[in-house]
Amino acid sequence: MSAPEPPAPRRARPSARVARRKARATPPAAPPYLTRTIPPYELLSEEGLVAVERHADQLLDEIGLEIRGDLEAIRLWRAAGARISGEWRVHVPRGLAREIVRRSAPREFTQHARNPARSVQIGGNHTVFAPAYGPPFVSDLDGGRRYGTLEDFRNFVKLTYASPWLHHSGGTVCEPVDVPVNERHLDMVYAHIRYSDKPFMGSVTSAARAADSIEMCRLLFGADFVESHCVILGNVNVNSPLVLDGEASRVIRTYAAANQAPVCVPFILGGAMGPVTTAGALAQCFAEATFCVALGQLERPGSPAILGNFLSSMSLRSGAPTFGTPEPALAYFGVGQLARRLGVPLRCGGNLCASKIADAQAAYESANSMWPAFLAGANFVLHAAGWLEAGLAMSYEKFVMDSDQLGAFHTLARGIADDNGFALEAFREIGPGRHYLGSAHTLANYQSAFYDFQLADNNSFEQWSAEGGRDLLQRANRRWKSLLEAYQPPPLDPARDEALREYVTRRKRAMPDEPG
Amino acid sequence: MSAPEPPAPRRARPSARVARRKARATPPAAPPYLTRTIPPYELLSEEGLVAVERHADQLLDEIGLEIRGDLEAIRLWRAAGARISGEWRVHVPRGLAREIVRRSAPREFTQHARNPARSVQIGGNHTVFAPAYGPPFVSDLDGGRRYGTLEDFRNFVKLTYASPWLHHSGGTVCEPVDVPVNERHLDMVYAHIRYSDKPFMGSVTSAARAADSIEMCRLLFGADFVESHCVILGNVNVNSPLVLDGEASRVIRTYAAANQAPVCVPFILGGAMGPVTTAGALAQCFAEATFCVALGQLERPGSPAILGNFLSSMSLRSGAPTFGTPEPALAYFGVGQLARRLGVPLRCGGNLCASKIADAQAAYESANSMWPAFLAGANFVLHAAGWLEAGLAMSYEKFVMDSDQLGAFHTLARGIADDNGFALEAFREIGPGRHYLGSAHTLANYQSAFYDFQLADNNSFEQWSAEGGRDLLQRANRRWKSLLEAYQPPPLDPARDEALREYVTRRKRAMPDEPG
Repeated sequence: MSAPEPPAPRRARPSARVARRKARATPPAAPPYLTRTIPPYELLSEEGLVAVERHADQLLDEIGLEIRGDLEAIRLWRAAGARISGEWRVHVPRGLAREIVRRSAPREFTQHARNPARSVQIGGNHTVFAPAYGPPFVSDLDGGRRYGTLEDFRNFVKLTYASPWLHHSGGTVCEPVDVPVNERHLDMVYAHIRYSDKPFMGSVTSAARAADSIEMCRLLFGADFVESHCVILGNVNVNSPLVLDGEASRVIRTYAAANQAPVCVPFILGGAMGPVTTAGALAQCFAEATFCVALGQLERPGSPAILGNFLSSMSLRSGAPTFGTPEPALAYFGVGQLARRLGVPLRCGGNLCASKIADAQAAYESANSMWPAFLAGANFVLHAAGWLEAGLAMSYEKFVMDSDQLGAFHTLARGIADDNGFALEAFREIGPGRHYLGSAHTLANYQSAFYDFQLADNNSFEQWSAEGGRDLLQRANRRWKSLLEAYQPPPLDPARDEALREYVTRRKRAMPDEPG
Repeated sequence: MSAPEPPAPRRARPSARVARRKARATPPAAPPYLTRTIPPYELLSEEGLVAVERHADQLLDEIGLEIRGDLEAIRLWRAAGARISGEWRVHVPRGLAREIVRRSAPREFTQHARNPARSVQIGGNHTVFAPAYGPPFVSDLDGGRRYGTLEDFRNFVKLTYASPWLHHSGGTVCEPVDVPVNERHLDMVYAHIRYSDKPFMGSVTSAARAADSIEMCRLLFGADFVESHCVILGNVNVNSPLVLDGEASRVIRTYAAANQAPVCVPFILGGAMGPVTTAGALAQCFAEATFCVALGQLERPGSPAILGNFLSSMSLRSGAPTFGTPEPALAYFGVGQLARRLGVPLRCGGNLCASKIADAQAAYESANSMWPAFLAGANFVLHAAGWLEAGLAMSYEKFVMDSDQLGAFHTLARGIADDNGFALEAFREIGPGRHYLGSAHTLANYQSAFYDFQLADNNSFEQWSAEGGRDLLQRANRRWKSLLEAYQPPPLDPARDEALREYVTRRKRAMPDEPG
């Protein structure tokens, strides 16, 4: 994966040069992924966990899950021992779905990045942060809310690349609405490859687009490498309750067949796509996700997969989805325990919120979602930065605000170190009633002692006022602009770049435009 | 404690009458305190906990803690088996401080409110939320930041009374700077009694003021009742590192001698009043707090007490204290485990932040502090609402924002119910691919199904924009005003009220004013 220098970037304007001195031009040294030395939070007792598993089993067995329009998936399930009723309803005998997963799904796997230093470990006590996925709109403080474009898409890939705390480039960081809908996936995958060297996700809107995404990885990594290594994820939503449409099931099978990792995500808005009670939604979510992970194993045993969930509650006043509420937090903790018992990596949502702007509502809700995701032991946290407005908008300001927050979880993950941490010598040196500011222990440790939010203002009221009295939203507005100005693309081998461009052009030519 | 109707409130202006229809005039039915059925988060291993206890023991034994200027406290410690070096340095043999606490401090106690329905249980798996304590400034969106007054103080007592999620009226909810400094405690304690019927805290700025606070409780509850029941808390800061000034130790002894509960709070800004490392700050905090709780037990065995902590990290850029950072979060989890092992109720700080306004920084930081306090198993959460600017300001808007957040922790505390929660009948009724909105299970459960933040806007972008596009700060501004307009005082027995007023007047007359 060695590569010559990329073509020289356009000459920076003076303002960009100034900004570059402040912001870092390349991602600073940071771990390629987070490793937790602290334990996960164990909410449910053994008895409680068994009850959820039993109810999930009962849903799959008695009621069943429909795969609408994928005869091959039905055939695979029948061969594995499931009963089929009607045309598409799959009834899985109790325990079989979990048994299939346990038998062959890896507990932990590496997703390789084109820069090997940025490959991520998914599963175990590792956590990978990826930006928000899917918003049709973007917003910033200057331009307000508008449809996303390919330029916005590239900007968020660049900002993700620039963040030391986002390990993964994500997938549809926003919808590039200015590109015909059937061509977008090609431009998106290319943008992830071209503007970043972090690992990324491919298309899931059709099996053919999933295949395109994987084919582009073959051009980038080599077909042999892709056959035996995970290099791309595909985030597939279940049509909850208890339906997997044929396109989604084919996408799962496409990724699995190529030895790549589907992320299987029940999408449950409690009271709409599932029951209003947390126990019921949790059992449903676990049943649906396990069913989909098992389908990937039936397609290709041993292929990697991630067990996902998307759980939201609902406003009683309006019926709108709500985020940062306690019910999904409880479900996160439960599904985390279930995934560990099953031995499969877990995806949770990260900094989710319903607020229309990056205000205090957005921040409370995001933290209320991120804390349980982290303590639940989530291995892959999607929507970890930028998410606004129940996922309808990707916000430039919230992106950098969330990213700053993610850094703190790296410190939290390390727990309490006790090597020189007890500082007995310092206590002996200082004694009662004196200050530690100049002590040898403080001088030796202060630079790495505390996580320091880059965007937080901890100054006095007077100094803060004198500097304009800006809130976090306004400071974040300056921050993302300086990061974009300082952006420099990572090197990419010109021959591979050329092959990728050629593939994109050829595929686009082969199909008529479909407007978005 | 039965009482006749209070005097009729002034006739409400029309706007108040309208507001009253929206906001509730009296606190809605809500539990007087929170009971957790979910387990606390266990961060440290047995080995780790023993290491912290061992280091805390070593600090108390080898280095010692000075009680500067309280000969009676020194005498108590000497009689208990401590070595005294120099005039004030108390060296406590290893394990003795914990042994004294274990021998007689209650694991759990009731703090009685004048309205018995609002008495709170402190300790065990219970959690009590109280507003911020100590800010000299107040702020709101209209008037900006200014010194607090007695009217502000009363307003925050009223707002706390109106909140279903704050269980406790707190203490110095803001400094009433317009009252002479030596008279403030009388007006503050009277305001808690007059404008609320929730439990409260007394003065700690001198032993005489603590005695005044307790004396007022005797007038309210009856002297015999106070002698045998906890009715007031006193929040006492340690002069960290390893110093307890004589006034603070006398205040601890004053509360304990009256069978009331001192809250013993090491105040450690890491790198200044303690080492920069979390393990060191945690050991110091545990040592200091245990020492103070033990002092209360030496004064009166069996008297109630709370083990507190105030831990902050520091900005490397400015040396300013920071909040919502991961280091104090880790320490919260550790001190929670240590307090449970010791068998004494724990105080943590709640919605702490460094931000100057109730923006996204304030919200992220607050949630980053509240989540670990809650999962650490804190029994008494001070600063749970209103805190801004590292504790320098009490914010009207942040108060109602934080209070709304506290409600969610009540739901979280209940965990995942599994009685009808698994909703098997609903799954059978709905089956795959249909909606639960009209199902019998949804209709039977939706009203209690989800916590709904009162101040969150979950509407569509279009509706939110049409309604003015207000952020949470602006909505909170309307909220606290409507709550204050709707406020109605709880009944108070006129004879006791008269006795309290007379006491305040007499005590004020007995001393010359000291300007604040």
